[in-house]
Amino acid sequence: MTLADAATKPHDRLREYLAEDMAAVNALIRTRMASDHAPRIPEVTQHLVEAGGKRIRPLMTLAAARLCGYDGTDHRKLAATVEFIHTATLLHDDVVDESEQRRGRPTANLLWDNKSSVLVGDYLFSRSFQLMVECGSLRVLDILANASATIAEGEVLQMTAAQNLSTGEDTYRLVVKGKTAALFEAATEVGGVVAGAPDSQVSALARYGDALGMSFQIVDDLLDFGGTSGALGKNIGDDFRERKLTLPMIKAIAKADAEERAFWQRTIEKGRQQEGDLDAALTLLRKHGALEETRVEALRYRDQAKAAIADLPPHPLRDMLADLADFVVERVS
Amino acid sequence: MTLADAATKPHDRLREYLAEDMAAVNALIRTRMASDHAPRIPEVTQHLVEAGGKRIRPLMTLAAARLCGYDGTDHRKLAATVEFIHTATLLHDDVVDESEQRRGRPTANLLWDNKSSVLVGDYLFSRSFQLMVECGSLRVLDILANASATIAEGEVLQMTAAQNLSTGEDTYRLVVKGKTAALFEAATEVGGVVAGAPDSQVSALARYGDALGMSFQIVDDLLDFGGTSGALGKNIGDDFRERKLTLPMIKAIAKADAEERAFWQRTIEKGRQQEGDLDAALTLLRKHGALEETRVEALRYRDQAKAAIADLPPHPLRDMLADLADFVVERVS
Repeated sequence: MTLADAATKPHDRLREYLAEDMAAVNALIRTRMASDHAPRIPEVTQHLVEAGGKRIRPLMTLAAARLCGYDGTDHRKLAATVEFIHTATLLHDDVVDESEQRRGRPTANLLWDNKSSVLVGDYLFSRSFQLMVECGSLRVLDILANASATIAEGEVLQMTAAQNLSTGEDTYRLVVKGKTAALFEAATEVGGVVAGAPDSQVSALARYGDALGMSFQIVDDLLDFGGTSGALGKNIGDDFRERKLTLPMIKAIAKADAEERAFWQRTIEKGRQQEGDLDAALTLLRKHGALEETRVEALRYRDQAKAAIADLPPHPLRDMLADLADFVVERVS
Repeated sequence: MTLADAATKPHDRLREYLAEDMAAVNALIRTRMASDHAPRIPEVTQHLVEAGGKRIRPLMTLAAARLCGYDGTDHRKLAATVEFIHTATLLHDDVVDESEQRRGRPTANLLWDNKSSVLVGDYLFSRSFQLMVECGSLRVLDILANASATIAEGEVLQMTAAQNLSTGEDTYRLVVKGKTAALFEAATEVGGVVAGAPDSQVSALARYGDALGMSFQIVDDLLDFGGTSGALGKNIGDDFRERKLTLPMIKAIAKADAEERAFWQRTIEKGRQQEGDLDAALTLLRKHGALEETRVEALRYRDQAKAAIADLPPHPLRDMLADLADFVVERVS
C-alpha cells in the first residue's frame, strides 16, 4: 500500500478501480427502477436514488467477480440485484420501525405513506428477481433465494426479540446475519459464481462477505454507544432509546445483578425511560466490559474475513477487500 | 357432463380429481410456511392456513400440468409457490387497505400488527422464491419473476389511481391484470412448462389463465354492486364506500353529465358520502347501462378463456377448466 493509498478509504479505492462497472450498475439501477405504468414508483425510487448511500453491496459483487478474473458484464446485473434487494428491505424496515429519517433525509413512508413504501418495496424486489433471472444461473438464483429467506426471517426475529430481556447472543447473531451478513455473503458469493470461479474460491468469498457483514453490523451497534470509550455525545443511544437490544446491552444484561436487572426491565422492557438513563446504561456497559467485549467480537469477525480471502490469487481487489475489513473496525479502534 | 357433475361446482370437481396432488400441496404449504427461528412466523401463517380460501390458483397449476400429461411432482412445488405469492400479496394488501376482515376472519394486521404482516409477507415471498428455484427451470423462474413485477406494478397503480375520476378502462384493466389475472396466467403457464408441453399448449394455458383471471375480477367488481340487477342488499357497495373506482363506475363516469359528475366528485374524489348515495350511484349505473356493459365484458373474457383451451387435447381436466370459466360468470348470469 502506498502512502497515497493509505490516505484513501478502501471503499473509495474499490469504487475508483471499478468505476466503469459501477457507472454501468448505476445506469442499470436507474433504468430498472422505472415503471411504464405507475407514476408513484419513479417518484419514490428517484428519492431513493438521490439519497444515494455508499452502494457497498454492489461493489462487493463487482469486486468478487473481477478478482476471480471475470471479463463479462452479468456481474453488473447481479450488483444491481443486490442493491435492489437492499433498498426494498430499507423501504419495508422504515415502515416497520416507523422511521422518519434515513441517510439524513426524510423517509419515503414520511414523504408519501406506508402504502407506497410497502408496495414500491415489493416492486423493487420483483425487479431484482427479474434481473437475476436474466443472468441464467440457477446457482445464483438459489443463493439469492436463500439469502432472501434468511433476511426476511431475521427481520421477523428482530421484531419479536425486541424488548425481550431474555434475548441471547445467539439470537442477536441470527438477527445480524439476516439484517446485514446474509446479503453481504450473497453479494460476494454470486460474484464468484458468475465468474465461474472454483468452489473453493466461491466459498472463500462467501465466508469473507458473511464475516465482513457481521463485523460491520457489530461495529455499528457499538458505535451507537459511542464506541469503546462509551463517550456521551451527539447521535448516540438511539438503540437504547428505541429499546432495541444489541450486543453491548445483551452482554451487560447477562451479567446484571438484581438492581441492574430492574433498571433494564424498566428502560427496555417497559420503556419507562427518564433523564440520565442513557448515562446510567453506559456506566453499566463499561462496568461489565460489554463495550470492550463487543469490540473484540468485531475484531474476531474482521480476522475471519481477512483469513477467508488470504489464499485467493493475488489481486489488487483482494487487497482492497482485506483493507475494507480493517477499515470497518477502524471506526472503533 | 353428467347430471351429477352438473350439481357439483367445477372447482370442487377439480379438487376431487386432483385430490392426491392437492393433499401434497397442502402439506408442502404447511411445511414451508414454518420457520426454525422466528416464532411470529408460524403464528401468522397458521392463522392464514386456517383461514383457508379456495386455493384456486394452485388448482390451476396442478390441472394445467396434469392435462398436459405430466406425471412428476414438481408441479406441486409450483402450486405451493403460486399460493405463497398470493398469500404474501394478501398480507401486504391488508396493510395497504387497512383491512380488518379477510374471508370472514380478522386480518393478520389486526390480530398482530402491520409490521408482522409486512415482514411475514416478505418471508412468504422469499419462501416461494426458494420453492420455484428447486424446480430448476429458468423458464418457470422467468414467468414468475415477470408475474411478480406485474403484480407489484398493478398494486402501485391501483393505489395511485384510486379516487381519481380520470381513471379510464385501460388503467382499470392494468390494475386487474396485476391484481388477479397475472398470477392466474402464471399459474397455468408454469403448469404447462413443468409438464414439458409444446409452446402452443403453454401459450394456450397462459391465455386461459389470463382471461379467467380478468373475468373473475370483473365479476367480483360487478357483484359488489349486486350484479346486473343492481339490487340493494347486504354486503354491497364496499367499493363505492371505499372510493375504489371499478369498471361499472368508470363506465358510468364516462357518460356522466355535469350534475352526475358533481355527484361522483363529491362521493369518490372528496369522499363526502351521505345516506342514500349508494342508491343514487346504483341508479346512475343502471341509467347508463354500466352494469350490463360490465357483464358483457366479463362474458367476453369467459369466451376468450374457453376458446384458448378448446384446441388442447381432450382431457377431463380441460373440460373442468372450461366449466370453471362458465361458473365464474354464472354468478352474474
